[in-house]
Amino acid sequence: MPAGLGCAMAIINANTMTTRPRKPGRGRTRSTPSPWQASRERHRDRELKREAVIRAAAREFNRKGYHNTSLDDIAARLQITKPTVYYYVTSKEQLLFQCFIGGVEQIRAAFRAVEGRRAPARVRLNAVLRHYGEAVASDFGWCMVRAEDQDLSPAMSRHIKALKSEIDHGIRQLIHEGIQDGSIAPCDAKMAAFALAGALNWIAHWYRENQSLTGAQIASAFVAIFEGGLAPRPARRRAKPRAARGTSGA
Amino acid sequence: MPAGLGCAMAIINANTMTTRPRKPGRGRTRSTPSPWQASRERHRDRELKREAVIRAAAREFNRKGYHNTSLDDIAARLQITKPTVYYYVTSKEQLLFQCFIGGVEQIRAAFRAVEGRRAPARVRLNAVLRHYGEAVASDFGWCMVRAEDQDLSPAMSRHIKALKSEIDHGIRQLIHEGIQDGSIAPCDAKMAAFALAGALNWIAHWYRENQSLTGAQIASAFVAIFEGGLAPRPARRRAKPRAARGTSGA
Repeated sequence: MPAGLGCAMAIINANTMTTRPRKPGRGRTRSTPSPWQASRERHRDRELKREAVIRAAAREFNRKGYHNTSLDDIAARLQITKPTVYYYVTSKEQLLFQCFIGGVEQIRAAFRAVEGRRAPARVRLNAVLRHYGEAVASDFGWCMVRAEDQDLSPAMSRHIKALKSEIDHGIRQLIHEGIQDGSIAPCDAKMAAFALAGALNWIAHWYRENQSLTGAQIASAFVAIFEGGLAPRPARRRAKPRAARGTSGA
Repeated sequence: MPAGLGCAMAIINANTMTTRPRKPGRGRTRSTPSPWQASRERHRDRELKREAVIRAAAREFNRKGYHNTSLDDIAARLQITKPTVYYYVTSKEQLLFQCFIGGVEQIRAAFRAVEGRRAPARVRLNAVLRHYGEAVASDFGWCMVRAEDQDLSPAMSRHIKALKSEIDHGIRQLIHEGIQDGSIAPCDAKMAAFALAGALNWIAHWYRENQSLTGAQIASAFVAIFEGGLAPRPARRRAKPRAARGTSGA
Protein backbone atom coordinates (compact mmCIF):
# COMPACT_ATOMS: atom_id res chain seq x y z
CA MET A 1 0.00 0.00 0.00
CA PRO A 2 1.53 3.37 -0.97
CA ALA A 3 2.70 5.48 1.92
CA GLY A 4 0.42 8.26 3.04
CA LEU A 5 -2.72 6.19 2.68
CA GLY A 6 -2.88 5.10 6.29
CA CYS A 7 -3.59 8.52 7.68
CA ALA A 8 -5.75 9.36 4.67
CA MET A 9 -8.09 6.48 5.40
CA ALA A 10 -9.80 8.55 8.07
CA ILE A 11 -11.16 10.98 5.53
CA ILE A 12 -13.20 8.41 3.65
CA ASN A 13 -16.82 7.61 4.45
CA ALA A 14 -16.92 10.94 6.21
CA ASN A 15 -19.77 12.63 4.39
CA THR A 16 -21.26 13.73 7.66
CA MET A 17 -18.08 14.96 9.19
CA THR A 18 -18.74 18.63 8.74
CA THR A 19 -22.43 18.44 9.56
CA ARG A 20 -22.31 16.15 12.59
CA PRO A 21 -18.93 16.40 14.33
CA ARG A 22 -18.58 14.06 17.26
CA LYS A 23 -18.49 15.80 20.60
CA PRO A 24 -15.59 14.78 22.82
CA GLY A 25 -16.28 14.12 26.47
CA ARG A 26 -19.86 12.85 26.04
CA GLY A 27 -21.30 9.43 26.88
CA ARG A 28 -19.36 6.60 28.41
CA THR A 29 -16.01 8.35 28.23
CA ARG A 30 -17.21 10.82 30.85
CA SER A 31 -18.17 8.12 33.34
CA THR A 32 -14.83 6.28 33.02
CA PRO A 33 -12.15 8.94 32.67
CA SER A 34 -8.79 7.65 31.46
CA PRO A 35 -5.68 9.46 30.21
CA TRP A 36 -5.50 6.98 27.31
CA GLN A 37 -9.08 7.61 26.25
CA ALA A 38 -8.50 11.34 26.52
CA SER A 39 -5.54 10.88 24.22
CA ARG A 40 -7.73 9.00 21.76
CA GLU A 41 -10.29 11.81 21.92
CA ARG A 42 -7.58 14.33 21.15
CA HIS A 43 -6.39 12.21 18.26
CA ARG A 44 -9.93 11.96 16.91
CA ASP A 45 -10.44 15.68 17.31
CA ARG A 46 -7.24 16.36 15.41
CA GLU A 47 -8.29 13.97 12.65
CA LEU A 48 -11.68 15.68 12.33
CA LYS A 49 -10.00 19.05 12.00
CA ARG A 50 -7.52 17.68 9.49
CA GLU A 51 -10.40 16.24 7.45
CA ALA A 52 -12.14 19.62 7.54
CA VAL A 53 -8.98 21.29 6.19
CA ILE A 54 -8.73 18.73 3.38
CA ARG A 55 -12.39 19.04 2.44
CA ALA A 56 -12.18 22.85 2.48
CA ALA A 57 -9.15 22.61 0.19
CA ALA A 58 -11.02 20.26 -2.17
CA ARG A 59 -13.86 22.77 -2.44
CA GLU A 60 -11.51 25.69 -3.09
CA PHE A 61 -9.48 23.76 -5.72
CA ASN A 62 -12.72 22.76 -7.40
CA ARG A 63 -14.00 26.34 -7.39
CA LYS A 64 -10.86 28.26 -8.37
CA GLY A 65 -8.39 25.68 -9.68
CA TYR A 66 -5.25 24.50 -7.91
CA HIS A 67 -2.86 27.24 -9.02
CA ASN A 68 -5.31 30.02 -8.23
CA THR A 69 -5.98 28.80 -4.70
CA SER A 70 -3.76 29.88 -1.80
CA LEU A 71 -3.52 28.43 1.69
CA ASP A 72 -4.93 31.78 2.82
CA ASP A 73 -8.10 31.07 0.83
CA ILE A 74 -8.46 27.70 2.52
CA ALA A 75 -7.82 29.20 5.95
CA ALA A 76 -10.37 31.94 5.25
CA ARG A 77 -13.01 29.36 4.28
CA LEU A 78 -12.56 27.72 7.72
CA GLN A 79 -12.12 31.02 9.55
CA ILE A 80 -8.72 29.95 10.84
CA THR A 81 -5.18 31.26 10.27
CA LYS A 82 -2.66 29.96 7.74
CA PRO A 83 -0.34 28.68 10.52
CA THR A 84 -3.27 26.58 11.77
CA VAL A 85 -3.58 25.05 8.29
CA TYR A 86 0.14 24.25 8.43
CA TYR A 87 -0.46 22.42 11.69
CA TYR A 88 -2.44 19.80 9.73
CA VAL A 89 -0.63 19.66 6.39
CA THR A 90 2.88 20.59 5.32
CA SER A 91 2.10 22.16 1.93
CA LYS A 92 -0.55 22.96 -0.66
CA GLU A 93 0.87 20.11 -2.72
CA GLN A 94 0.22 17.68 0.11
CA LEU A 95 -3.32 19.02 0.41
CA LEU A 96 -4.02 18.29 -3.24
CA PHE A 97 -2.57 14.82 -2.82
CA GLN A 98 -4.78 14.16 0.21
CA CYS A 99 -7.83 15.39 -1.68
CA PHE A 100 -6.99 12.92 -4.45
CA ILE A 101 -6.63 10.16 -1.89
CA GLY A 102 -9.93 11.18 -0.29
CA GLY A 103 -11.75 10.42 -3.55
CA VAL A 104 -9.75 7.42 -4.67
CA GLU A 105 -10.08 5.70 -1.30
CA GLN A 106 -13.87 5.64 -1.76
CA ILE A 107 -13.34 3.59 -4.93
CA ARG A 108 -10.76 1.33 -3.32
CA ALA A 109 -13.15 0.72 -0.44
CA ALA A 110 -15.81 -0.28 -3.00
CA PHE A 111 -13.43 -2.84 -4.52
CA ARG A 112 -12.71 -4.26 -1.07
CA ALA A 113 -16.43 -4.43 -0.30
CA VAL A 114 -17.21 -6.62 -3.32
CA GLU A 115 -14.06 -8.73 -3.06
CA GLY A 116 -15.57 -11.60 -1.12
CA ARG A 117 -19.01 -11.50 -2.73
CA ARG A 118 -20.18 -14.40 -4.88
CA ALA A 119 -22.41 -12.24 -7.07
CA PRO A 120 -21.82 -12.29 -10.86
CA ALA A 121 -18.94 -10.03 -11.84
CA ARG A 122 -21.25 -7.54 -13.57
CA VAL A 123 -23.16 -7.01 -10.32
CA ARG A 124 -19.86 -6.44 -8.49
CA LEU A 125 -18.60 -4.15 -11.24
CA ASN A 126 -21.81 -2.10 -11.11
CA ALA A 127 -21.42 -1.67 -7.34
CA VAL A 128 -17.87 -0.39 -7.84
CA LEU A 129 -18.92 1.92 -10.67
CA ARG A 130 -21.69 3.43 -8.54
CA HIS A 131 -19.20 4.28 -5.81
CA TYR A 132 -16.79 5.55 -8.47
CA GLY A 133 -19.43 7.91 -9.85
CA GLU A 134 -20.35 9.12 -6.38
CA ALA A 135 -16.70 9.77 -5.56
CA VAL A 136 -16.22 11.83 -8.73
CA ALA A 137 -19.36 13.83 -7.96
CA SER A 138 -18.13 14.45 -4.40
CA ASP A 139 -15.99 17.36 -3.19
CA PHE A 140 -12.92 15.33 -4.10
CA GLY A 141 -13.91 14.73 -7.74
CA TRP A 142 -12.01 17.64 -9.21
CA CYS A 143 -8.82 16.68 -7.39
CA MET A 144 -9.22 13.01 -8.37
CA VAL A 145 -9.25 13.74 -12.05
CA ARG A 146 -6.90 16.73 -12.10
CA ALA A 147 -4.26 16.05 -9.46
CA GLU A 148 -1.92 14.30 -11.87
CA ASP A 149 -1.83 17.27 -14.23
CA GLN A 150 -0.66 19.72 -11.61
CA ASP A 151 2.97 20.37 -10.80
CA LEU A 152 3.34 17.84 -8.01
CA SER A 153 6.56 16.25 -6.82
CA PRO A 154 7.68 13.23 -8.83
CA ALA A 155 7.01 10.98 -5.81
CA MET A 156 3.41 12.18 -5.49
CA SER A 157 2.82 11.88 -9.22
CA ARG A 158 4.09 8.30 -9.10
CA HIS A 159 1.71 7.53 -6.23
CA ILE A 160 -1.22 8.99 -8.07
CA LYS A 161 -0.38 7.11 -11.26
CA ALA A 162 0.01 3.86 -9.32
CA LEU A 163 -3.37 4.26 -7.64
CA LYS A 164 -5.08 5.14 -10.92
CA SER A 165 -3.48 2.11 -12.51
CA GLU A 166 -4.65 -0.10 -9.63
CA ILE A 167 -8.24 1.07 -10.17
CA ASP A 168 -8.01 0.63 -13.94
CA HIS A 169 -6.75 -2.92 -13.49
CA GLY A 170 -9.46 -3.63 -10.92
CA ILE A 171 -12.13 -2.63 -13.43
CA ARG A 172 -10.54 -4.65 -16.21
CA GLN A 173 -10.30 -7.66 -13.90
CA LEU A 174 -14.02 -7.50 -13.09
CA ILE A 175 -14.81 -7.20 -16.81
CA HIS A 176 -12.65 -10.27 -17.54
CA GLU A 177 -14.38 -12.18 -14.75
CA GLY A 178 -17.76 -11.08 -16.09
CA ILE A 179 -16.92 -12.34 -19.57
CA GLN A 180 -15.89 -15.64 -18.00
CA ASP A 181 -18.97 -16.07 -15.79
CA GLY A 182 -21.25 -14.98 -18.64
CA SER A 183 -22.58 -11.88 -16.91
CA ILE A 184 -20.73 -9.51 -19.28
CA ALA A 185 -20.88 -9.75 -23.07
CA PRO A 186 -17.53 -10.50 -24.71
CA CYS A 187 -15.72 -7.20 -25.34
CA ASP A 188 -12.31 -5.55 -25.31
CA ALA A 189 -11.85 -5.28 -21.54
CA LYS A 190 -9.18 -2.60 -21.79
CA MET A 191 -11.27 -0.36 -24.04
CA ALA A 192 -14.40 -0.99 -21.97
CA ALA A 193 -12.54 -0.02 -18.78
CA PHE A 194 -11.31 3.19 -20.42
CA ALA A 195 -14.81 4.02 -21.66
CA LEU A 196 -16.45 3.41 -18.27
CA ALA A 197 -13.81 5.26 -16.24
CA GLY A 198 -13.73 8.10 -18.77
CA ALA A 199 -17.47 8.64 -18.63
CA LEU A 200 -17.35 8.65 -14.83
CA ASN A 201 -14.25 10.84 -14.56
CA TRP A 202 -15.86 13.41 -16.82
CA ILE A 203 -18.60 13.95 -14.24
CA ALA A 204 -16.07 16.12 -12.40
CA HIS A 205 -16.10 18.50 -15.38
CA TRP A 206 -19.81 19.18 -15.43
CA TYR A 207 -21.33 18.21 -12.11
CA ARG A 208 -22.28 20.94 -9.65
CA GLU A 209 -23.62 20.12 -6.21
CA ASN A 210 -26.77 22.18 -6.64
CA GLN A 211 -28.00 20.21 -9.66
CA SER A 212 -31.28 18.36 -9.66
CA LEU A 213 -29.61 14.94 -9.46
CA THR A 214 -27.34 13.73 -6.67
CA GLY A 215 -24.02 12.06 -7.39
CA ALA A 216 -25.58 8.69 -6.52
CA GLN A 217 -28.45 9.23 -8.98
CA ILE A 218 -26.05 10.16 -11.77
CA ALA A 219 -23.86 7.16 -11.03
CA SER A 220 -26.91 4.87 -11.17
CA ALA A 221 -28.10 6.41 -14.45
CA PHE A 222 -24.64 5.88 -15.96
CA VAL A 223 -24.49 2.26 -14.80
CA ALA A 224 -27.88 1.61 -16.41
CA ILE A 225 -26.59 3.06 -19.70
CA PHE A 226 -23.32 1.09 -19.58
CA GLU A 227 -25.20 -2.07 -18.79
CA GLY A 228 -27.99 -1.91 -21.32
CA GLY A 229 -26.25 -0.08 -24.16
CA LEU A 230 -28.00 2.17 -26.65
CA ALA A 231 -29.29 -0.52 -28.99
CA PRO A 232 -32.69 -1.83 -27.96
CA ARG A 233 -32.68 -5.37 -26.55
CA PRO A 234 -34.08 -7.76 -29.19
CA ALA A 235 -36.47 -9.44 -26.75
CA ARG A 236 -38.27 -6.17 -26.07
CA ARG A 237 -38.52 -4.42 -29.41
CA ARG A 238 -37.19 -6.44 -32.26
CA ALA A 239 -39.44 -5.04 -34.96
CA LYS A 240 -38.95 -1.29 -34.83
CA PRO A 241 -35.26 -0.89 -35.69
CA ARG A 242 -35.64 -3.23 -38.67
CA ALA A 243 -38.50 -1.19 -40.01
CA ALA A 244 -36.39 1.93 -39.61
CA ARG A 245 -33.50 0.34 -41.46
CA GLY A 246 -35.82 -0.76 -44.22
CA THR A 247 -36.81 2.76 -45.07
CA SER A 248 -33.32 4.21 -44.94
CA GLY A 249 -31.55 1.83 -47.28
CA ALA A 250 -28.59 1.93 -44.86
CA MET B 1 -22.05 30.80 -36.38
CA PRO B 2 -19.59 32.18 -33.82
CA ALA B 3 -16.98 34.56 -35.16
CA GLY B 4 -13.57 33.15 -35.84
CA LEU B 5 -14.89 29.93 -37.29
CA GLY B 6 -14.75 31.03 -40.88
CA CYS B 7 -11.00 31.20 -41.05
CA ALA B 8 -10.68 28.18 -38.82
CA MET B 9 -12.63 26.03 -41.27
CA ALA B 10 -9.53 25.60 -43.38
CA ILE B 11 -7.76 23.60 -40.73
CA ILE B 12 -10.32 20.82 -40.65
CA ASN B 13 -10.07 17.71 -42.81
CA ALA B 14 -6.43 18.57 -43.19
CA ASN B 15 -4.78 15.40 -41.92
CA THR B 16 -2.40 15.39 -44.83
CA MET B 17 -1.51 19.04 -44.69
CA THR B 18 1.92 18.60 -43.17
CA THR B 19 2.81 15.47 -45.13
CA ARG B 20 1.61 16.52 -48.59
CA PRO B 21 1.73 20.29 -48.93
CA ARG B 22 0.41 21.52 -52.23
CA LYS B 23 3.06 23.04 -54.48
CA PRO B 24 2.19 26.48 -55.85
CA GLY B 25 2.87 27.11 -59.52
CA ARG B 26 2.32 23.56 -60.76
CA GLY B 27 -0.33 22.19 -63.15
CA ARG B 28 -2.90 24.30 -64.93
CA THR B 29 -1.98 27.50 -63.10
CA ARG B 30 1.37 27.52 -64.87
CA SER B 31 -0.17 27.33 -68.37
CA THR B 32 -2.70 30.11 -67.67
CA PRO B 33 -0.95 32.65 -65.46
CA SER B 34 -3.29 35.17 -63.85
CA PRO B 35 -2.70 37.71 -61.10
CA TRP B 36 -5.97 36.55 -59.44
CA GLN B 37 -4.89 32.90 -59.43
CA ALA B 38 -1.49 33.89 -58.08
CA SER B 39 -3.28 35.73 -55.32
CA ARG B 40 -5.29 32.59 -54.56
CA GLU B 41 -2.06 30.56 -54.45
CA ARG B 42 -0.57 33.03 -52.00
CA HIS B 43 -3.70 32.84 -49.87
CA ARG B 44 -3.54 29.03 -49.88
CA ASP B 45 0.14 29.12 -49.00
CA ARG B 46 -0.57 31.44 -46.10
CA GLU B 47 -3.39 29.17 -44.89
CA LEU B 48 -1.12 26.11 -45.02
CA LYS B 49 1.49 27.89 -42.96
CA ARG B 50 -1.11 29.11 -40.51
CA GLU B 51 -2.43 25.56 -40.16
CA ALA B 52 1.12 24.34 -39.51
CA VAL B 53 1.51 26.92 -36.73
CA ILE B 54 -1.79 25.85 -35.14
CA ARG B 55 -0.94 22.15 -35.34
CA ALA B 56 2.52 22.75 -33.89
CA ALA B 57 0.91 24.68 -31.04
CA ALA B 58 -1.57 21.83 -30.43
CA ARG B 59 1.30 19.37 -30.15
CA GLU B 60 3.26 21.60 -27.76
CA PHE B 61 0.22 22.31 -25.54
CA ASN B 62 -0.50 18.58 -25.45
CA ARG B 63 3.10 17.79 -24.52
CA LYS B 64 3.84 20.52 -21.98
CA GLY B 65 0.51 22.05 -21.04
CA TYR B 66 -0.75 25.47 -22.05
CA HIS B 67 0.87 27.56 -19.30
CA ASN B 68 4.25 25.86 -19.71
CA THR B 69 4.37 26.43 -23.48
CA SER B 70 5.76 29.66 -24.93
CA LEU B 71 5.45 31.02 -28.46
CA ASP B 72 9.23 30.50 -28.63
CA ASP B 73 8.66 26.74 -28.13
CA ILE B 74 6.16 26.69 -30.98
CA ALA B 75 8.46 28.71 -33.22
CA ALA B 76 11.37 26.39 -32.40
CA ARG B 77 9.29 23.34 -33.33
CA LEU B 78 8.73 24.84 -36.79
CA GLN B 79 12.24 26.28 -37.06
CA ILE B 80 10.88 29.79 -37.51
CA THR B 81 11.10 32.96 -35.40
CA LYS B 82 8.56 34.22 -32.91
CA PRO B 83 7.71 37.25 -35.11
CA THR B 84 6.84 34.79 -37.88
CA VAL B 85 4.40 33.06 -35.51
CA TYR B 86 2.85 36.48 -34.77
CA TYR B 87 2.31 36.94 -38.49
CA TYR B 88 -0.27 34.11 -38.36
CA VAL B 89 -1.84 34.54 -34.91
CA THR B 90 -2.11 37.47 -32.54
CA SER B 91 -1.55 35.66 -29.24
CA LYS B 92 -0.99 32.34 -27.50
CA GLU B 93 -4.58 32.58 -26.31
CA GLN B 94 -5.81 32.78 -29.89
CA LEU B 95 -3.68 29.77 -30.75
CA LEU B 96 -5.32 27.70 -28.04
CA PHE B 97 -8.72 28.83 -29.27
CA GLN B 98 -7.88 27.86 -32.85
CA CYS B 99 -6.64 24.45 -31.67
CA PHE B 100 -9.95 23.97 -29.88
CA ILE B 101 -11.81 24.96 -33.05
CA GLY B 102 -9.62 22.59 -35.07
CA GLY B 103 -10.92 19.63 -33.07
CA VAL B 104 -14.49 20.75 -32.58
CA GLU B 105 -14.96 21.51 -36.27
CA GLN B 106 -14.31 17.85 -37.06
CA ILE B 107 -17.29 16.96 -34.88
CA ARG B 108 -19.47 19.72 -36.33
CA ALA B 109 -18.60 18.50 -39.81
CA ALA B 110 -19.72 15.00 -38.78
CA PHE B 111 -23.09 16.38 -37.65
CA ARG B 112 -23.49 18.17 -40.98
CA ALA B 113 -22.57 15.00 -42.87
CA VAL B 114 -25.37 12.94 -41.28
CA GLU B 115 -27.93 15.74 -41.31
CA GLY B 116 -29.63 14.77 -44.54
CA ARG B 117 -29.29 11.00 -44.15
CA ARG B 118 -32.37 8.86 -43.69
CA ALA B 119 -30.56 6.19 -41.68
CA PRO B 120 -31.89 5.33 -38.19
CA ALA B 121 -30.76 7.87 -35.60
CA ARG B 122 -28.49 5.33 -33.88
CA VAL B 123 -26.57 4.85 -37.13
CA ARG B 124 -26.21 8.63 -37.50
CA LEU B 125 -25.23 8.99 -33.84
CA ASN B 126 -22.57 6.29 -34.20
CA ALA B 127 -21.09 8.07 -37.21
CA VAL B 128 -20.85 11.30 -35.21
CA LEU B 129 -19.36 9.51 -32.20
CA ARG B 130 -16.69 7.89 -34.36
CA HIS B 131 -15.60 11.29 -35.68
CA TYR B 132 -15.81 12.67 -32.14
CA GLY B 133 -13.45 9.95 -30.89
CA GLU B 134 -11.06 10.51 -33.77
CA ALA B 135 -11.02 14.25 -33.09
CA VAL B 136 -10.22 13.73 -29.41
CA ALA B 137 -7.42 11.32 -30.32
CA SER B 138 -6.02 13.85 -32.82
CA ASP B 139 -3.45 16.56 -32.16
CA PHE B 140 -6.29 18.86 -31.15
CA GLY B 141 -7.75 16.53 -28.51
CA TRP B 142 -5.94 18.03 -25.53
CA CYS B 143 -6.99 21.55 -26.49
CA MET B 144 -10.58 20.45 -27.13
CA VAL B 145 -11.06 19.13 -23.64
CA ARG B 146 -8.86 21.59 -21.75
CA ALA B 147 -9.26 24.92 -23.48
CA GLU B 148 -12.14 26.03 -21.30
CA ASP B 149 -10.15 25.52 -18.10
CA GLN B 150 -7.35 27.82 -19.14
CA ASP B 151 -7.31 31.53 -18.47
CA LEU B 152 -8.86 32.66 -21.74
CA SER B 153 -10.68 35.91 -22.37
CA PRO B 154 -14.36 35.89 -21.37
CA ALA B 155 -15.33 36.17 -25.06
CA MET B 156 -13.32 33.09 -26.03
CA SER B 157 -14.62 31.14 -23.04
CA ARG B 158 -18.17 31.99 -24.08
CA HIS B 159 -17.46 30.78 -27.63
CA ILE B 160 -16.02 27.55 -26.38
CA LYS B 161 -18.92 26.94 -24.02
CA ALA B 162 -21.41 27.71 -26.80
CA LEU B 163 -19.76 25.24 -29.18
CA LYS B 164 -19.59 22.53 -26.51
CA SER B 165 -23.22 23.12 -25.74
CA GLU B 166 -24.11 22.88 -29.44
CA ILE B 167 -22.40 19.49 -29.65
CA ASP B 168 -24.01 18.26 -26.44
CA HIS B 169 -27.44 19.24 -27.76
CA GLY B 170 -26.69 17.62 -31.10
CA ILE B 171 -25.95 14.31 -29.38
CA ARG B 172 -29.04 14.56 -27.19
CA GLN B 173 -31.14 15.33 -30.24
CA LEU B 174 -29.91 12.20 -32.05
CA ILE B 175 -30.62 10.13 -28.93
CA HIS B 176 -34.14 11.54 -28.75
CA GLU B 177 -34.67 10.79 -32.44
CA GLY B 178 -33.31 7.28 -31.90
CA ILE B 179 -35.75 6.66 -29.06
CA GLN B 180 -38.53 7.86 -31.33
CA ASP B 181 -37.54 5.79 -34.38
CA GLY B 182 -36.93 2.74 -32.18
CA SER B 183 -33.23 2.43 -32.97
CA ILE B 184 -32.19 3.52 -29.44
CA ALA B 185 -33.55 1.98 -26.26
CA PRO B 186 -35.51 4.39 -24.06
CA CYS B 187 -33.06 6.15 -21.74
CA ASP B 188 -32.29 9.48 -20.09
CA ALA B 189 -30.96 11.31 -23.16
CA LYS B 190 -29.16 13.95 -21.11
CA MET B 191 -27.33 11.42 -18.96
CA ALA B 192 -26.57 9.24 -21.99
CA ALA B 193 -25.11 12.23 -23.85
CA PHE B 194 -22.92 13.08 -20.85
CA ALA B 195 -21.75 9.48 -20.54
CA LEU B 196 -20.90 9.15 -24.24
CA ALA B 197 -19.16 12.52 -24.51
CA GLY B 198 -17.32 11.93 -21.22
CA ALA B 199 -15.94 8.58 -22.31
CA LEU B 200 -14.80 10.12 -25.60
CA ASN B 201 -13.38 13.29 -24.05
CA TRP B 202 -11.35 11.25 -21.62
CA ILE B 203 -9.44 9.72 -24.55
CA ALA B 204 -7.42 12.95 -24.57
CA HIS B 205 -6.13 12.07 -21.09
CA TRP B 206 -4.70 8.69 -21.94
CA TYR B 207 -4.20 8.41 -25.69
CA ARG B 208 -0.72 8.72 -27.12
CA GLU B 209 -0.11 8.69 -30.86
CA ASN B 210 2.37 5.81 -30.70
CA GLN B 211 -0.12 3.37 -29.16
CA SER B 212 -1.08 0.13 -30.85
CA LEU B 213 -4.56 1.41 -31.77
CA THR B 214 -5.33 4.40 -33.97
CA GLY B 215 -7.83 7.04 -32.93
CA ALA B 216 -10.33 5.58 -35.41
CA GLN B 217 -9.96 2.07 -33.95
CA ILE B 218 -10.49 3.35 -30.40
CA ALA B 219 -13.52 5.35 -31.48
CA SER B 220 -15.00 2.24 -33.15
CA ALA B 221 -14.34 0.08 -30.08
CA PHE B 222 -16.06 2.68 -27.89
CA VAL B 223 -19.07 2.88 -30.19
CA ALA B 224 -19.42 -0.93 -30.06
CA ILE B 225 -19.39 -0.79 -26.25
CA PHE B 226 -21.90 2.08 -26.08
CA GLU B 227 -24.16 0.32 -28.53
CA GLY B 228 -24.16 -3.18 -27.10
CA GLY B 229 -23.75 -2.43 -23.40
CA LEU B 230 -22.05 -4.74 -20.93
CA ALA B 231 -24.97 -7.06 -20.28
CA PRO B 232 -25.13 -9.97 -22.73
CA ARG B 233 -27.92 -9.76 -25.27
CA PRO B 234 -30.72 -12.23 -24.38
CA ALA B 235 -30.97 -13.62 -27.91
CA ARG B 236 -27.36 -14.78 -27.86
CA ARG B 237 -26.79 -16.06 -24.37
CA ARG B 238 -29.88 -16.00 -22.25
CA ALA B 239 -28.99 -18.98 -20.04
CA LYS B 240 -25.58 -18.09 -18.63
CA PRO B 241 -26.25 -14.92 -16.65
CA ARG B 242 -29.29 -16.55 -15.04
CA ALA B 243 -27.21 -19.53 -14.03
CA ALA B 244 -24.62 -17.16 -12.56
CA ARG B 245 -27.30 -15.35 -10.59
CA GLY B 246 -28.64 -18.65 -9.36
CA THR B 247 -25.40 -19.61 -7.70
CA SER B 248 -24.71 -16.24 -6.15
CA GLY B 249 -27.99 -15.75 -4.35
CA ALA B 250 -27.82 -12.07 -5.39
